[in-house]
Amino acid sequence: MLAYHLGVEVECKISEAIDPRHYQTGFHSTATCGTFAAAAASAKLMRLDVEQTLRALSIAGSQSAGLRENFGTMTKPFHAGRSSESGVAAAQLASYGWTATDKILEAPRGFFRAAGGGYDENAILDKLGAPWTFAQPGISIKPHPSGSLTHPGMTEMRRLIREHGIKAENVHRVRVGTNHNMPNALIHHRPENELQAKFSMEFCMAILLLEGRAGLNEFTDEVVRRADVKAMIEKIDFVVDDEAEAAGYDRMTTILDITLKNGGKVSGRADFGKGSPANPMSFDEVSDKFRETAGFAGLGEDKTSDVVAMVRDLETLASIDRLLAPLRF
Amino acid sequence: MLAYHLGVEVECKISEAIDPRHYQTGFHSTATCGTFAAAAASAKLMRLDVEQTLRALSIAGSQSAGLRENFGTMTKPFHAGRSSESGVAAAQLASYGWTATDKILEAPRGFFRAAGGGYDENAILDKLGAPWTFAQPGISIKPHPSGSLTHPGMTEMRRLIREHGIKAENVHRVRVGTNHNMPNALIHHRPENELQAKFSMEFCMAILLLEGRAGLNEFTDEVVRRADVKAMIEKIDFVVDDEAEAAGYDRMTTILDITLKNGGKVSGRADFGKGSPANPMSFDEVSDKFRETAGFAGLGEDKTSDVVAMVRDLETLASIDRLLAPLRF
Repeated sequence: MLAYHLGVEVECKISEAIDPRHYQTGFHSTATCGTFAAAAASAKLMRLDVEQTLRALSIAGSQSAGLRENFGTMTKPFHAGRSSESGVAAAQLASYGWTATDKILEAPRGFFRAAGGGYDENAILDKLGAPWTFAQPGISIKPHPSGSLTHPGMTEMRRLIREHGIKAENVHRVRVGTNHNMPNALIHHRPENELQAKFSMEFCMAILLLEGRAGLNEFTDEVVRRADVKAMIEKIDFVVDDEAEAAGYDRMTTILDITLKNGGKVSGRADFGKGSPANPMSFDEVSDKFRETAGFAGLGEDKTSDVVAMVRDLETLASIDRLLAPLRF
Repeated sequence: MLAYHLGVEVECKISEAIDPRHYQTGFHSTATCGTFAAAAASAKLMRLDVEQTLRALSIAGSQSAGLRENFGTMTKPFHAGRSSESGVAAAQLASYGWTATDKILEAPRGFFRAAGGGYDENAILDKLGAPWTFAQPGISIKPHPSGSLTHPGMTEMRRLIREHGIKAENVHRVRVGTNHNMPNALIHHRPENELQAKFSMEFCMAILLLEGRAGLNEFTDEVVRRADVKAMIEKIDFVVDDEAEAAGYDRMTTILDITLKNGGKVSGRADFGKGSPANPMSFDEVSDKFRETAGFAGLGEDKTSDVVAMVRDLETLASIDRLLAPLRF
């Protein structure tokens, strides 16, 4: 657990410190900063000493890579896996005595300068664990397997469907307004496969209207190519909205205006998505998500329930091995 | 052979096109652009079609990494190996149908913008193979296993030693003057191991004065730590020189001024190192280098001579397999 949290903390603080140019011009920080996270977590698990850990981070820095142009393709999830593998390899090499610089982040030819052009000292110096980013501002657990920027709109759409009993066949058009940053990431307006659908506001709105849900079963190539899905996507207008723009970039404000065929109108606004620190998922909601994804992976109902019960009482669990055992299948 | 040359050409043209910020701020282009090279060569060897090759290059782009802060450590040569492995993996993934963007270099969130801030269209559009960089301006083969920036000085030092019969015990001091860019890369003034020695002008000068040669046998931790080597290093003044600075950055001008204990002075200047296109190694000189390194790797004299003979008559060799056979050991 400590290794996991160290990895998360190292990744978050590096991400917060590097100049925003890093992400803006194309690097995918999950991949780039994630390599350092994997190295830090692995170094802790392998009980490396301080010097070895420094070297592990430096070897990680020389493997830190990942470009956002690959969003919407299989290479996007590959970023997370490859960066994890690179971090593990970095820690292993360091443990064998592999040498590397002892200052990879802030050095003149190091990560911050090359990959970002600079960094904010105040975001990282004396900030490790003070506070832990995991606790403050906190982390998001996404209820849906699509991009986090789709979540405020999806949260609000589910609420409107539920509260107003909206049925797909009654929908005339839907206007989805956000700040101009969000269409910059949600680039697939007419998705052709499940990977593009995860970066498509139009698909996420359409599938909720049609199915009332958007989990792993809905994000499949087959569903994306369904005629009724494509027809519903044509009813979604994803636009930049002045009010959303004015809300500021620390929010992901999404404004929905649904016009019904009977002339009725339903509107709503969400500044944050379900699962974010501002609107967290409950333990039961996270359990439900786990049950669905575990079912998808074939874990089986008994083992799934065992895992949920043990996580519920994690603080009193005698050993983490008991939790991991049912997950090895 | 074609795959090799395609790889070299792709790497060179990408390196020439990306904004110089890329290297200046810390990326190591051998590693970063080398990933594309390995992907291109692998794609050709695996006979991938155009679409697969585009994807291979894009998967390579998301693994393109390597920071110069790790120069002088084991992680520097690791850059070449890891980038090659990443390129091979990229081509293999593409061959399995792995998806990626079809435009990784010039796209808004692609390699040139993220890793360089831009690129020079004129350096890459319609320039592949026109001319092949391998032929024009041509490539360097380094006679010594140290950084290329050490080579003009080493070439001139060897010439002065030979022509003036300079002996180590008669040397009072040596002044080595270059432009200010060279000390920026040759950062190890008092090297402690062979990896640092490869980026140390002082060591390279000292070992030539002491041994008259600087091959793999001289770049060892044991030699670097010898008392006579350390003493000779103290006699070398590596400085920025006005005349070298004025020569321009397309040269690696190095000016040597050797003061002898008897009061005599010997001076010389080299603008390019032995092995560069301006001062190429002869076939026999390259053969000698191969014999030394092959001996170091334990190839054996017979096989070594076979390889040299086959390369000498490469144009008439029936199959490349005959050349590779003795190298598999």
